[in-house]
Amino acid sequence: MKLARLGEIGHEVPVLVDGDRYLDLRGVVTDIDAHALSVEGLRRISEAAGSLPELEDAAGRRIGAPLTRPGAVICIGMNYAAHAAESGSEPPTIPIMFLKAPNTVGGPDDEVAIPRRSEKTDWEVELAVVIGERALYLDSPADARRHIAGYLVANDLSEREFQIELSGGQWSKGKVSPGFSPLGPWLVTSDEIDPSDLRLRSWVNGEPRQDSSTADLIFDVDHIVWHLSQFMALDPGDVIMTGTPEGVALSGRFPYLKAGDVVEIEIEGLGRQRQVFAQA
Amino acid sequence: MKLARLGEIGHEVPVLVDGDRYLDLRGVVTDIDAHALSVEGLRRISEAAGSLPELEDAAGRRIGAPLTRPGAVICIGMNYAAHAAESGSEPPTIPIMFLKAPNTVGGPDDEVAIPRRSEKTDWEVELAVVIGERALYLDSPADARRHIAGYLVANDLSEREFQIELSGGQWSKGKVSPGFSPLGPWLVTSDEIDPSDLRLRSWVNGEPRQDSSTADLIFDVDHIVWHLSQFMALDPGDVIMTGTPEGVALSGRFPYLKAGDVVEIEIEGLGRQRQVFAQA
Repeated sequence: MKLARLGEIGHEVPVLVDGDRYLDLRGVVTDIDAHALSVEGLRRISEAAGSLPELEDAAGRRIGAPLTRPGAVICIGMNYAAHAAESGSEPPTIPIMFLKAPNTVGGPDDEVAIPRRSEKTDWEVELAVVIGERALYLDSPADARRHIAGYLVANDLSEREFQIELSGGQWSKGKVSPGFSPLGPWLVTSDEIDPSDLRLRSWVNGEPRQDSSTADLIFDVDHIVWHLSQFMALDPGDVIMTGTPEGVALSGRFPYLKAGDVVEIEIEGLGRQRQVFAQA
Repeated sequence: MKLARLGEIGHEVPVLVDGDRYLDLRGVVTDIDAHALSVEGLRRISEAAGSLPELEDAAGRRIGAPLTRPGAVICIGMNYAAHAAESGSEPPTIPIMFLKAPNTVGGPDDEVAIPRRSEKTDWEVELAVVIGERALYLDSPADARRHIAGYLVANDLSEREFQIELSGGQWSKGKVSPGFSPLGPWLVTSDEIDPSDLRLRSWVNGEPRQDSSTADLIFDVDHIVWHLSQFMALDPGDVIMTGTPEGVALSGRFPYLKAGDVVEIEIEGLGRQRQVFAQA
């Protein structure tokens, strides 16, 4: 199933995406939240799918993030060898974890403001995992999959001066500006996606930037969920961004973003985002 | 005013603490949340203070964290020079920021489980700031105070092997185990606390560990709020832990925590916590 949320910020309507039709889920769930993303919640949505009313005026509506604000937005850093190299780092021998503030989440096509005093705002297309059932101290990576509700496209927007030069080494400061976590357009449930070899790409003003596959992840989805569960409780609705491949501005090969630029990112089977950048 | 929440996890009742009486706030606010912590919310609580009913059976109830789950738990690292030195670091020249997952928040006296495979669980008494009104791009530290709803005691529990040795340098992995952010017992509103010189102390099994003053903060409360607001939107209900003074186990002067240990922490005017440690 493809789940989405349509409407203005704070007033999004949960929908099931059926081809180019948007089916109204308000009779089944209150929102795409921890309850809806549980095994039981997804089962209820699935059972209702054949009898849902179509949402009127869907075409004209804003696309929101496809789930309510997460309790945690967890990121894995340097998880593609070529990106680690372009960032001047060795590939990690253990997953590197940091957090974004959940209030950075936005819709996939929302305008994003380049922060004040930013000269190094950068894009990062990433496969994101959405947790459906609490995961804590999993025995092995093989146990991970049943804790995953689905997958979505994430742009892990980053300000490199804030992240690296003004941070004392802790990256989160460059990851938390308003709008820095566009999610969506859809959340695709885990029964419909094999995350092991998905092409992921980005463009700036129509020119290609990143073009890789999740097959190149150093630590794959199951390993990440298992590993994180040794250190924290992953709760329903939590989002894990699994890392970005090579082709970002930090490499020195491309200019950083400026007001007026258009970033597009896409992952095979998970849809496409398009953000116009403004100046805060 | 002193605000608190009494009752079992997920069923806490918001109260106003009046000496040793607990006054039931349920007729005024739904919980101690972003609405209650706004200027308008605190004004409504203040106006109702004289006519609130006393909460029955208050004495026997668990003390919860004094606010609902924050949208973000933000930490400032190495913010006391003597603690930076005992950690083997130079004092920072700019605030170092990292995040904890909000699902780590617990009550001040809740049992805490030492994580599996942990050998280096450590305590950190910290003054925490609670945001009352959104702060973004503040002009100066002098503007910070009107965005602060109040203050509380926080234990920024940390697992040093997870934080430093298994992290690739990003500290959050050692900061996010379940129960690692005890808050409370009270939230004291900012009109009643001057955060510039508060004594803060910790004990393990009754033996003194930390004993310093917030006067020794490298970056004070107003500077922290102003600085963070240049990089992120601080939202009502967000919690900022301002850093811990010297006297933690990481120094090598004291053993790390083991099951059965009792940690107590206290800040002048903000109350005292007491946690018994178990094994996950």
